[in-house]
Amino acid sequence: MRTQVCIIGGGPSGLLLSQLLHLAGIDSVVLERRTRDYVLGRIRAGVLESGTVDLLRKAKVGDRMDRQGIVDDGIVVGGETHGFRIDIKALTGKSMMVWGQTEITQDLYDARDAMGGTVIHEAEAVKPHGLDSDAPYVTYHKDGTEHRIDCDWIAGCDGFHGVSRQSIPRTVLKEYERIYPFGWLGVLSETPPVTHEILYASHSRGFALASLRNENLSRYYVQVPQGEPVENWSDDRFWDEFKARIPGDLADKLVTGPTIEKSIAPLRSYAAEPMRWGRLFLVGDAAHIVPPTGAKGLNLAASDVHYLFEALKAHYLDHDDAGIEGYAQKAAARVWQAMRFSWWFTTVMHRFPDQSGFDRRMQESEIRLLETSKTAQAAMAELYVGAPY
Amino acid sequence: MRTQVCIIGGGPSGLLLSQLLHLAGIDSVVLERRTRDYVLGRIRAGVLESGTVDLLRKAKVGDRMDRQGIVDDGIVVGGETHGFRIDIKALTGKSMMVWGQTEITQDLYDARDAMGGTVIHEAEAVKPHGLDSDAPYVTYHKDGTEHRIDCDWIAGCDGFHGVSRQSIPRTVLKEYERIYPFGWLGVLSETPPVTHEILYASHSRGFALASLRNENLSRYYVQVPQGEPVENWSDDRFWDEFKARIPGDLADKLVTGPTIEKSIAPLRSYAAEPMRWGRLFLVGDAAHIVPPTGAKGLNLAASDVHYLFEALKAHYLDHDDAGIEGYAQKAAARVWQAMRFSWWFTTVMHRFPDQSGFDRRMQESEIRLLETSKTAQAAMAELYVGAPY
Repeated sequence: MRTQVCIIGGGPSGLLLSQLLHLAGIDSVVLERRTRDYVLGRIRAGVLESGTVDLLRKAKVGDRMDRQGIVDDGIVVGGETHGFRIDIKALTGKSMMVWGQTEITQDLYDARDAMGGTVIHEAEAVKPHGLDSDAPYVTYHKDGTEHRIDCDWIAGCDGFHGVSRQSIPRTVLKEYERIYPFGWLGVLSETPPVTHEILYASHSRGFALASLRNENLSRYYVQVPQGEPVENWSDDRFWDEFKARIPGDLADKLVTGPTIEKSIAPLRSYAAEPMRWGRLFLVGDAAHIVPPTGAKGLNLAASDVHYLFEALKAHYLDHDDAGIEGYAQKAAARVWQAMRFSWWFTTVMHRFPDQSGFDRRMQESEIRLLETSKTAQAAMAELYVGAPY
Repeated sequence: MRTQVCIIGGGPSGLLLSQLLHLAGIDSVVLERRTRDYVLGRIRAGVLESGTVDLLRKAKVGDRMDRQGIVDDGIVVGGETHGFRIDIKALTGKSMMVWGQTEITQDLYDARDAMGGTVIHEAEAVKPHGLDSDAPYVTYHKDGTEHRIDCDWIAGCDGFHGVSRQSIPRTVLKEYERIYPFGWLGVLSETPPVTHEILYASHSRGFALASLRNENLSRYYVQVPQGEPVENWSDDRFWDEFKARIPGDLADKLVTGPTIEKSIAPLRSYAAEPMRWGRLFLVGDAAHIVPPTGAKGLNLAASDVHYLFEALKAHYLDHDDAGIEGYAQKAAARVWQAMRFSWWFTTVMHRFPDQSGFDRRMQESEIRLLETSKTAQAAMAELYVGAPY
């Protein structure tokens, strides 16, 4: 088989890139290791920057989002005793959209199906070849046979554990990492959300976050120690702990109920460079992981897709390779700013096992500054709503 | 002897408080352990917030400052390859003033002398008594005799090593501290300053700072490892290192020459609470130390003096004790914001011996954000120029 762009990974990044390329008349094939049901079963991020919202509309997968998504004009930050609102819309002129990754992926699959896009599931042992040649190709196994796709470019949209980044020689790849000494215990609960605006609560018992999927589906988290087994957390224990960490006025109106999903995710900052090596581009989690505080992960993947799509479009339609040559630098510059923001917000809001009284005072002072200074709020809001592409 | 306010410590805080009280008709005595020449020989801070400038004018010690001080409307931040300016005046409407602590102290002594203020030098073994009673007093030794000053209130302006803070019971005092793993090697040089606006340079070789005292007196610093002996640093070595760390356009026009002072100071963040215990108030370095990055130390002492002066004035002139009751909370709130700012600026700008590649990238991203975002600059400028009292 031959295509122009071979996309490794059928999550939202790979599908979105394939959809945008298709709309521009550029051919692509998406290879996904898992089944479609498995991909759609992953519960992930759900808060979109305005740039991501625009990109989804441009990819013609924004209709359901615009009908069912919840527009958020602000966030709530909780301190030890009370919460306060940061009016993102008033400070930046832009809003966020609450719309789950699962929904986005569903809409992308539907769009790829409708347009006859090629998405190959259960592609095993995927391997890119000839990255530093003019004739790259990708091999994979499916139904007991080895297949080969010849292409011009390979887009590595296969996440942190994928083969794409691992195909860049060790001598070339630079890696940067911070592992945080805690995780997030997250639940989904079919209860009315306690708040329609995301609540980030910094409490001496630990961080808590209140988010939502829709009017009857709440997404709540509490910080737990690293290595904590999820079995330690009954629903009752979760609700008690969550309630203790959020501001009193919200705790009073919290509706609890059985959880339909409960899991613990570790927190990590990770970035690899370069984001392009020869004919391979790294996109999204394949190149970088942020802790979920501030909801940058999916949004960064979207901005990578944007830069790569524009680069490939200019290459094929205008015979202009400036975008190709500039991708690694341009995408990484935006990535590092979001890495910093996610690291900062994580560091300010969580309790660290070894933190001193001085460290705690620095956190409290930072939150107090956010509460009292419109200028500090504006600086935070600008980063929260996302840099323009 | 009897006075209304006994002030322990004859540095700028104690003298300024005494001067303001005098102008309001409130009697005070200042006790200083050292000689006047010793106090005037200390080389310290030299960048004043606009609030400090206003307070010195209010204390009628602003004339020489207004004639000879250098008004700074901006700062320069250096990164690895180049520097950029933050226009503090445009962003905040306020300026800073370059005017040395030694000059301020000189003017305060002159003013106290002119007004017949009581400043007792070489007061040894100063000790406050009856802090939790209605009849506090201070004892000290001078010329082989023990003396006693009865008073209403005691102001502890005697610095980090003074007796005032140590007079608060251990069970009451809460302390917060961070020691930084480096020091500042500072020189004074009778050369024209390389810049009239303070330069903060973050370089992979370490931090450097360019400041000035006047048109022919430069004050320059480089970060050095903790415990570094000053004997390791010849003038030549200092100039080579300083030049390597500052942006190239400034390095090219740097005028070097013999240094007239050279010393190494450790960097520390420290705060103690409460800032009032019974009849004792802690002011300035007696309660808190900040690292010099951002020049907050003297300015924080000035805001403490302001709050305490207003409290004592309301007590004596209006029989209103709200200021007395609120001093600890009000002064500390401003202190913690400046503690956070100084810690943040120090942490972003210096090289840490154990920092990872990820940590370094976070520093570079923070500096890049400051360079590219007017909103981030505004948030920084607001803190640099100082919160209103």
